[in-house]
Amino acid sequence: MPLLVMKFGGTSVADLARIENAAQKVRAEVARGYDVIVIVSAMSGKTNELVGWVETTSKLYDAREYDAVVASGENVTAGLMALRLQEMDVPARSWQGWQVPINTTSAHGSARFLSIPRDHIDAKFSEGFRVAVVAGFQGISTEGRITTLGRGGSDTTAVAFAAAFGAERCDIYTDVDGIYTTDPRITGKARKLDRIAFEEMLELASLGAKVLQTRSVELAMRYKVRLRVLSSFEDTDETSGTLVCDEEEIVESKAVSGVAYSRDEAKMTLLDVADRPGVASAIFGPLADAGVNVDMIVQNISENLAGHSGATTDMTFSVPVNQVDRARKAMEDARAAGIVSYDDLVIDTDVAKVSVVGIGMRSQVGVAARMFAALAAENVNIKVIATSEIKISVLIDRKYMELAVQALHDAFELEKA
Amino acid sequence: MPLLVMKFGGTSVADLARIENAAQKVRAEVARGYDVIVIVSAMSGKTNELVGWVETTSKLYDAREYDAVVASGENVTAGLMALRLQEMDVPARSWQGWQVPINTTSAHGSARFLSIPRDHIDAKFSEGFRVAVVAGFQGISTEGRITTLGRGGSDTTAVAFAAAFGAERCDIYTDVDGIYTTDPRITGKARKLDRIAFEEMLELASLGAKVLQTRSVELAMRYKVRLRVLSSFEDTDETSGTLVCDEEEIVESKAVSGVAYSRDEAKMTLLDVADRPGVASAIFGPLADAGVNVDMIVQNISENLAGHSGATTDMTFSVPVNQVDRARKAMEDARAAGIVSYDDLVIDTDVAKVSVVGIGMRSQVGVAARMFAALAAENVNIKVIATSEIKISVLIDRKYMELAVQALHDAFELEKA
Repeated sequence: MPLLVMKFGGTSVADLARIENAAQKVRAEVARGYDVIVIVSAMSGKTNELVGWVETTSKLYDAREYDAVVASGENVTAGLMALRLQEMDVPARSWQGWQVPINTTSAHGSARFLSIPRDHIDAKFSEGFRVAVVAGFQGISTEGRITTLGRGGSDTTAVAFAAAFGAERCDIYTDVDGIYTTDPRITGKARKLDRIAFEEMLELASLGAKVLQTRSVELAMRYKVRLRVLSSFEDTDETSGTLVCDEEEIVESKAVSGVAYSRDEAKMTLLDVADRPGVASAIFGPLADAGVNVDMIVQNISENLAGHSGATTDMTFSVPVNQVDRARKAMEDARAAGIVSYDDLVIDTDVAKVSVVGIGMRSQVGVAARMFAALAAENVNIKVIATSEIKISVLIDRKYMELAVQALHDAFELEKA
Repeated sequence: MPLLVMKFGGTSVADLARIENAAQKVRAEVARGYDVIVIVSAMSGKTNELVGWVETTSKLYDAREYDAVVASGENVTAGLMALRLQEMDVPARSWQGWQVPINTTSAHGSARFLSIPRDHIDAKFSEGFRVAVVAGFQGISTEGRITTLGRGGSDTTAVAFAAAFGAERCDIYTDVDGIYTTDPRITGKARKLDRIAFEEMLELASLGAKVLQTRSVELAMRYKVRLRVLSSFEDTDETSGTLVCDEEEIVESKAVSGVAYSRDEAKMTLLDVADRPGVASAIFGPLADAGVNVDMIVQNISENLAGHSGATTDMTFSVPVNQVDRARKAMEDARAAGIVSYDDLVIDTDVAKVSVVGIGMRSQVGVAARMFAALAAENVNIKVIATSEIKISVLIDRKYMELAVQALHDAFELEKA
């Protein structure tokens, strides 16, 4: 029988009524002829309660015990979901991580999958079970201890099961009804996408469209698992939501699929850096050691010609605004230690990043020009530009962020399907 | 190293402060040189919450899913207790039932132990761990599903571990500070016993002294596990509480150790039952089929001599007062079906049972006479008498129950050590 993986996050199973609602969606897929593996999170609030108890009990807690305590939240949902399905005459049973077993590394709190053997669950499907309800976010280490996967672990579990069982699709039920061309709170013209490529989703996710965890999209891309994002709280059918898939499945050829933004950026510029071989590493090494996530980097030649003795350069980069103090200290320490020399450090904490993303960029020219023209028409000054194969990002004054998103959404006609 | 089992019930681990308090008691035993196996219940209220969710989700729930959901409560406590002990620099780890593994039958909700292999926990003790915190009330079936043990399961888990690991003692921490000669609410003269024999404890437990579950005492008696009952909420040392042990360990030789009572009794009398061979089975068979727990049984010859043709007898028995309707229906149905014939059924729902219990009775004569004299002195009329090797029970009007308990406590001088 064809197999589907369905994943329900914490808000989708927040209480018994929502578990009932989720079970209805599972039953509908069973009625369509699918065997289903359901991945569930803990009822929302429960994980926080358990984490609170652990942290109150022990500040520097043993991560193995943390995992043993916190994983129980998903186990409860799995049992309740199986019971609800049984009440609907759907043959179902729950599976805890160690029962499958979901074999992981021993990196408690951020474990990685080693293997998900199919035999136990396949045997139950053969016996006539139609649904396996699996507790997400957890596994078992080679030492036989319970592990958890860290942030977004239930999404990752769903994708890993879809890959292991060759599922036709992995449906991620959440509190939004799909992926939009941009944040609908910024422009009413934002349009839900029917399909989006893995690469585009990765760029959008890392830029702040917080629907799917990056790691789960990466995993889906690697194993070519078709992901569908759709709403738990609406009536859904086979055409609902947004399909995240390989670009071969995408027939549209728009240059740009979406406009992303990130509000909490800061721009840092080192002025008159002595420009010699190894200077970039002298700057970004200390920043990395200090745990600063540097995003965009631009180097400008100032005063003299590059490569000549005595030449200096300006080095500009962006960091999350809450890491500015750490970044400044890392630079000042590096200067004091003689690792790098610069004249001044200029910090602008009032910037935002806006990006256009689209796999169509690979084949279409003029996207950047069109983007810059749209911003210029609104008198938005561009401070930094960075590009990748399927993305162009600009740093601008934060007060223009919404305006820029709206202008770009219009310029690329994203409201049109 | 000598080994101790310590068990903490739901009220003893009701919140983080109480878990801390329990952990202090464990640390004290480790400091005395013991390796410790700690058996924990769910934080009080948690099991009810989980059971409520299961019952709301599915009326005729799958007991396997019930167990999977409900067992998570104990797992949480086990992890938190291990963390608390680690914070106190006591090397500890948690164990869920399947990790030990606690092998049980597949009778979900009322599973029985099959085996508790020592090797995994012993290996950890060898590595320097001093405490194994085990989730009580649960195990794993031969099918690999999570099982629970039913009422009193955590006490039973504690005794089973004490037997499997040859523990020096099994300490049951609860909300009372020991076993008393009778209920202190009935007489201020009630005295805490230092020691009590397994057999006495069994008689007291089944008669309503609800400190230890009958099944755990039976198990302790069979494997000669010394049980100690003591309070979680008081400072305790090696002499605290009451030791429940083999009678060989008891040096005192009082005839009576305690006075028990049961308030919720009813007396039923079948008048003029046709007395022929098999009549007892004709009466008590249907009662058993109806799930009625018959306790005391007395047969009086009325009118004619027993054994003669046409003779009749009165048959009196006691049942829990909430089973009276069921018992009456069973008797009326049996009469209608011609299984038993009787003239009338007299029911007295206003009775109580009072018992004196003591292993000293085996060697001392006159206990019954002394009991009846004490009751007669207070003008308490005895309705039914039943005796066993170490117990004499009487059924009396309920209004005299407290008076009878006080009189018997005085008569046997139980206030004196």
